Amino acid sequence: MPYEFKATRRVEFSYTDLAGIVHFSRFFQYMETVEHGFFRSLGFSVVMPHDTPPRGFPRVHASCDYQRPLRFEDLVEMHLLVAARTARSLSYRIRFTRIEPGPAEEVAVGSLVVVCVEKPTHGPMRAVELPPALAAQVEVAPAALLAATTERSG
Amino acid sequence: MPYEFKATRRVEFSYTDLAGIVHFSRFFQYMETVEHGFFRSLGFSVVMPHDTPPRGFPRVHASCDYQRPLRFEDLVEMHLLVAARTARSLSYRIRFTRIEPGPAEEVAVGSLVVVCVEKPTHGPMRAVELPPALAAQVEVAPAALLAATTERSG
Amino acid sequence: MPYEFKATRRVEFSYTDLAGIVHFSRFFQYMETVEHGFFRSLGFSVVMPHDTPPRGFPRVHASCDYQRPLRFEDLVEMHLLVAARTARSLSYRIRFTRIEPGPAEEVAVGSLVVVCVEKPTHGPMRAVELPPALAAQVEVAPAALLAATTERSG
Amino acid sequence: MPYEFKATRRVEFSYTDLAGIVHFSRFFQYMETVEHGFFRSLGFSVVMPHDTPPRGFPRVHASCDYQRPLRFEDLVEMHLLVAARTARSLSYRIRFTRIEPGPAEEVAVGSLVVVCVEKPTHGPMRAVELPPALAAQVEVAPAALLAATTERSG
Repeated sequence: MPYEFKATRRVEFSYTDLAGIVHFSRFFQYMETVEHGFFRSLGFSVVMPHDTPPRGFPRVHASCDYQRPLRFEDLVEMHLLVAARTARSLSYRIRFTRIEPGPAEEVAVGSLVVVCVEKPTHGPMRAVELPPALAAQVEVAPAALLAATTERSG
Repeated sequence: MPYEFKATRRVEFSYTDLAGIVHFSRFFQYMETVEHGFFRSLGFSVVMPHDTPPRGFPRVHASCDYQRPLRFEDLVEMHLLVAARTARSLSYRIRFTRIEPGPAEEVAVGSLVVVCVEKPTHGPMRAVELPPALAAQVEVAPAALLAATTERSG
Repeated sequence: MPYEFKATRRVEFSYTDLAGIVHFSRFFQYMETVEHGFFRSLGFSVVMPHDTPPRGFPRVHASCDYQRPLRFEDLVEMHLLVAARTARSLSYRIRFTRIEPGPAEEVAVGSLVVVCVEKPTHGPMRAVELPPALAAQVEVAPAALLAATTERSG
Repeated sequence: MPYEFKATRRVEFSYTDLAGIVHFSRFFQYMETVEHGFFRSLGFSVVMPHDTPPRGFPRVHASCDYQRPLRFEDLVEMHLLVAARTARSLSYRIRFTRIEPGPAEEVAVGSLVVVCVEKPTHGPMRAVELPPALAAQVEVAPAALLAATTERSG
């Protein structure tokens, strides 16, 4: 249903740091990966080359609570839920679960808030409404699902 | 005074994305850069090779609110404030200001919460007290300074 | 056969730069991704936690020739060939092909040379022979295959 | 003189990997950092927003030979030399030296070959002559300097 999407990634060597775990900044890249997979699942891309003026989805807020480390070659699942939407913005909750090696364990929960903008050739970006093709499909996830996926300290 | 530290960085090409601005995940790397500069300014490093067992400072929370984009070759200042401390953790507020090209403008405000842990050769990490050499020096920033550096939505 | 391995990746937003294409340094991360996938396909990992002393595979040479740009959401195939092996080292050739959107086109060819080392707790790394479990399986690719995958200027 | 440029960087935590050293792909980001510093030293940027059509400097070749590891908080110097130039391309040699902790030691030597291109709004990139303001200044380094900075296996 168009309020959630899942993707998995095998942790790559270059994502680890000298502490032997995935660098905390990488979780934000994973969040974006599952967001864009969600968009593709709706037949949509954040990059629509023929939009005039070009449109984009800059982030206005990003956060993550970390509970357990991720390590090289772990298989991690990112489960995205649409947490809120307005005419011009979307909020996501993303739950990270290590699924290999098992047993499955939640490792982190993150959030993104993105705004739809137009970027005229001259002048600053300005917020605009979500593209109709996207807005027509995206729903907010049921409250019970969201309640089960909560940042602890955010 | 040991409750704040400033560092600057010239935005590198590899930190930008196809939207022409610094990728939002990079702000978390910048936050860590100024944190470690703060530690060095106190004669301290997050990596003390002769600690037995080894000690580390994993992040339990990270967040950022973005107000304006940063672009290639902009000069950005990261101003770190110690927002809170407990026996085993430190919280930072980091304010990002574009200082070139001027006039100076705040572009983002972020937060990190880090916990001091020991990593035994066998068994899981466990939270421990901050190293005395660090704890003896670090202070919480004055409330007025912190109030002036607030995440909007975090 | 244990002289080649293929992996694919969908280009992520954070891998692009303001020129709108995948940053050239990212191809080296892709090379490592397919190398480690090759190792896993042989039941082997570059990180064997119970090796005493720990073993690693640092790179002594890396290069890449770029023919065409890769863009956001392109699907790229990395085809690794074992180009040479000695008692202590492996050389790989990696061919990058954009397979979506089609038609398939070669975009780059890269090379890595890695050496097996031991890392004693004290003292510097030193080159050692490849682990027998790996050496027993890895073969050099046929000359005809290698000849078809050549860096142009390397 | 306009055939060389030096820059230094303190190794950041996020540049290390679980082997405890700077990830090999990061040396290519450092190469670009010193290249762009060189351009700025000549009053020039790779991003000239008012060029019509936009111009860029994609890499057609990149390579690096690694001799010693770089570690967290090491201070590394990148010394760029112009190794060759044609009407449409520049070749650089970049020597990496760890200068802290001392004594200074060469850790790696890399190369980049970049081509100047125009990017029309429609249609593919095409190679064009170097901008006159750049071409008028850039010289090839003396042979003796280049001979002292050689990749071993490239």
